[in-house]
Amino acid sequence: ELQRKLEELHPADVAYILEALPLDERRLVWGQVKAECDGEILLEVSDSVRESLIQMMDKAELLAAAESLDTDEIADIAADLPHDVIQDLLTSLDAQKRAHLQSALAYPEDTVGALMDFEMVTIRVDVTLEVALRYLRRLGELPDQLDKLFVVGRDDRIIGVLPLKRLLTTDPEVSVAAVMVEDFVKFHPEDEAQEAAQAFERYDLVMAPVVDAQGRLIGRLTVDAVLDYIRESADADMLSMAGLKEEEDLFSSVWRSAKNRWMWLAVNLATAFIASRVIGAFEGSIEKLAALAALMPIIAGIGGNTGNQTIALIVRGLALGQITQANARRLVLKELGVALFNGLLWGSVVGVFAWLLYDNLALGGVMALAMLLNLIVAALAGIFIPMTLERMKRDPAVGSSVLLTFTTDSMGFFIFLGLATVLLL
Amino acid sequence: ELQRKLEELHPADVAYILEALPLDERRLVWGQVKAECDGEILLEVSDSVRESLIQMMDKAELLAAAESLDTDEIADIAADLPHDVIQDLLTSLDAQKRAHLQSALAYPEDTVGALMDFEMVTIRVDVTLEVALRYLRRLGELPDQLDKLFVVGRDDRIIGVLPLKRLLTTDPEVSVAAVMVEDFVKFHPEDEAQEAAQAFERYDLVMAPVVDAQGRLIGRLTVDAVLDYIRESADADMLSMAGLKEEEDLFSSVWRSAKNRWMWLAVNLATAFIASRVIGAFEGSIEKLAALAALMPIIAGIGGNTGNQTIALIVRGLALGQITQANARRLVLKELGVALFNGLLWGSVVGVFAWLLYDNLALGGVMALAMLLNLIVAALAGIFIPMTLERMKRDPAVGSSVLLTFTTDSMGFFIFLGLATVLLL
Ligand SMILES: [Mg+2]
Ligand SMILES: [Mg+2]
Ligand SMILES: [Mg+2]
Ligand SMILES: [Mg+2]
Ligand SMILES: [Mg+2]
Ligand SMILES: [Mg+2]
Ligand SMILES: [Mg+2]
Ligand SMILES: [Mg+2]
Ligand SMILES: [Mg+2]
Ligand SMILES: [Mg+2]
Ligand SMILES: [Mg+2]
Ligand SMILES: [Mg+2]
Ligand SMILES: [Mg+2]
Repeated sequence: ELQRKLEELHPADVAYILEALPLDERRLVWGQVKAECDGEILLEVSDSVRESLIQMMDKAELLAAAESLDTDEIADIAADLPHDVIQDLLTSLDAQKRAHLQSALAYPEDTVGALMDFEMVTIRVDVTLEVALRYLRRLGELPDQLDKLFVVGRDDRIIGVLPLKRLLTTDPEVSVAAVMVEDFVKFHPEDEAQEAAQAFERYDLVMAPVVDAQGRLIGRLTVDAVLDYIRESADADMLSMAGLKEEEDLFSSVWRSAKNRWMWLAVNLATAFIASRVIGAFEGSIEKLAALAALMPIIAGIGGNTGNQTIALIVRGLALGQITQANARRLVLKELGVALFNGLLWGSVVGVFAWLLYDNLALGGVMALAMLLNLIVAALAGIFIPMTLERMKRDPAVGSSVLLTFTTDSMGFFIFLGLATVLLL
Repeated sequence: ELQRKLEELHPADVAYILEALPLDERRLVWGQVKAECDGEILLEVSDSVRESLIQMMDKAELLAAAESLDTDEIADIAADLPHDVIQDLLTSLDAQKRAHLQSALAYPEDTVGALMDFEMVTIRVDVTLEVALRYLRRLGELPDQLDKLFVVGRDDRIIGVLPLKRLLTTDPEVSVAAVMVEDFVKFHPEDEAQEAAQAFERYDLVMAPVVDAQGRLIGRLTVDAVLDYIRESADADMLSMAGLKEEEDLFSSVWRSAKNRWMWLAVNLATAFIASRVIGAFEGSIEKLAALAALMPIIAGIGGNTGNQTIALIVRGLALGQITQANARRLVLKELGVALFNGLLWGSVVGVFAWLLYDNLALGGVMALAMLLNLIVAALAGIFIPMTLERMKRDPAVGSSVLLTFTTDSMGFFIFLGLATVLLL
């Protein structure tokens, strides 16, 4: 019954169901999946769920599943397969496929080489469309997401592309050379996947050739791989901004989930301790005026919130490549302007509030001034922290927020308690 | 010179350049763009940059730009066009195009109807492939991203699709009815864009028909529109998580940027004030033991950080539709387990630190206990806040983090200062 229902589903839908199931039920459903679908499903599930499924399979099942996949797809799940399965696979493949698998495995995760596949159709430049049409009919089947043929010269270099829509709308007597497009987007396997994705978005591509330094065809990149990449990296960005080290299966064990969150906890504890020591330095002032303790989190918190707004804009601008040394100065001036404006306005609001609440005009004044100064600190940190991380080739989306909160907390406490100590006590 | 260079660029590239330029230089470049490219470029730039470009154009220029676009594209920029330009456009279009424009304008932003276009090719079911091939040749040109023909019956209902790859690989004598695919993905214009995007990802679609309730063809959805949608909504999510009301042009005026950040500032000030009042209630205890003021931000801060980790997982699970009433109980148990585990472990670390630093064992004990309790508060809030927002049909990605930080700050201060007051003083 379950088995029959599963058979009717697309592998991507079975993958989706498996991801939403706790471990014991997942095992039950996975046992009912037909062996010939195992490979496709392993390909579609998330990394952590794939690990859990692979643990439920023996070596023979894994080999069979991997053998049902294309070489580029095997490469996608290779990181999760036991080493001896990979070895057996490599020896069982024919020479061309082995070469494909090794080439797909050779490129790091975020490159075009890791996303490309090898399913393409090439034709020679010196034939007519009639010949091309007959060739396609003889092939009998075409790969998915194929919207153009690759036109190669005598030395296997790609010299043009023939969009299927031209093939379909042009008189068959015409030669390929006459209708092919010579100005086309191509990628190298070392290119960053991120940049290829931007090209797909900008030029509305469905597929594009991947070539080596000599212009020889290696593979192709398709829009469905790009779509998966964009979604996965957006997900990973969101999780790592919250400090989750790796993608976490909703139903990972407590132990595994706890460990996944340690790094972040440790980093945050360390920064919180330092901020705490800043306050510790002013314990004398706080004993004299306990109101300072109640008011200081406002200064620190608002600094963190506005700084994170600046970071969100800068990280996006950096990702789009729109922030350069040339316009950085302008950005700094603009963000300082916003901080000054908001600091004067909201600093006054906060100051009046503190004045009325504690019936202490000087305390209100210190509050307003500290707020203004911490917003300026937040604006500068919100620009320089992500830009520095980017220049150090680190991901500005991840580390920026911790560093910023650390800065605005410590400086917020220091500015407020310091001003209060000097001006009030 | 500049003009010649701009002419060689793809409209999407010109759009990219315009987005990275400050206002005055943007005006200069925009003046050099050829009028016939204006429409395409307006389509590609971000909303806020589009507004700035439209302000630089007079009515005649705007009309000319809009008239160079397809009806679905006019609909995409319509929100930014002056009302009288839209009126003039509607009267200048022929009946079919006017109907298309009105239908595209009728659907809300996040629906399939807002993303669809009207460029499709239909054929009748009762002809042979030979006839279909001749028909395409007569058309002379095919729309971009077209990977299938729509097969319609006598009543204009879509009854199947004919993938171009089948058309190209099958004997032309065969009838359309014999090779068409009858089990295909289709959308309704009211469908959520988010769900259509998931279907494109799962089933690796390039394009799909959009039909009305009676199954009559209205338009089509293409992967390039889906890609743009995914990117735009990921960007918008990230910006709105940081509390930016609208997309902000990097070089918006100070006044405009400042206003864009007010709502968030006001919300955060309000929650910070309440947390500050919680501390205010314990000012007597703080006067007696100023160390409490230095230690309390650690409890509050770590609670906020771990709670935001839980939120990141829950928000992603909700977006993927993987969290249901049925598995919510399991999730709560798991997150409570993680909180208990991390609370005991890291609570002890923090407790020992406080004990050694202030040479006060009881203070260390209070610190450890408060940390454990606030991590449990954070885990529960991290699950229930986004799930409640989702059930209230609000975006859990946006509001959750503020509400959580408010909860972990207030509760953290209350738990720590309350325990200290009862147990230490
Ligand atoms: Mg099985
Ligand atoms: Mg992966
Ligand atoms: Mg791969
Ligand atoms: Mg593929
Ligand atoms: Mg595009
Ligand atoms: Mg376009
Ligand atoms: Mg112009
Ligand atoms: Mg828009
Ligand atoms: Mg539209
Ligand atoms: Mg289009
Ligand atoms: Mg896919
Ligand atoms: Mg696939
Ligand atoms: Mg905080």
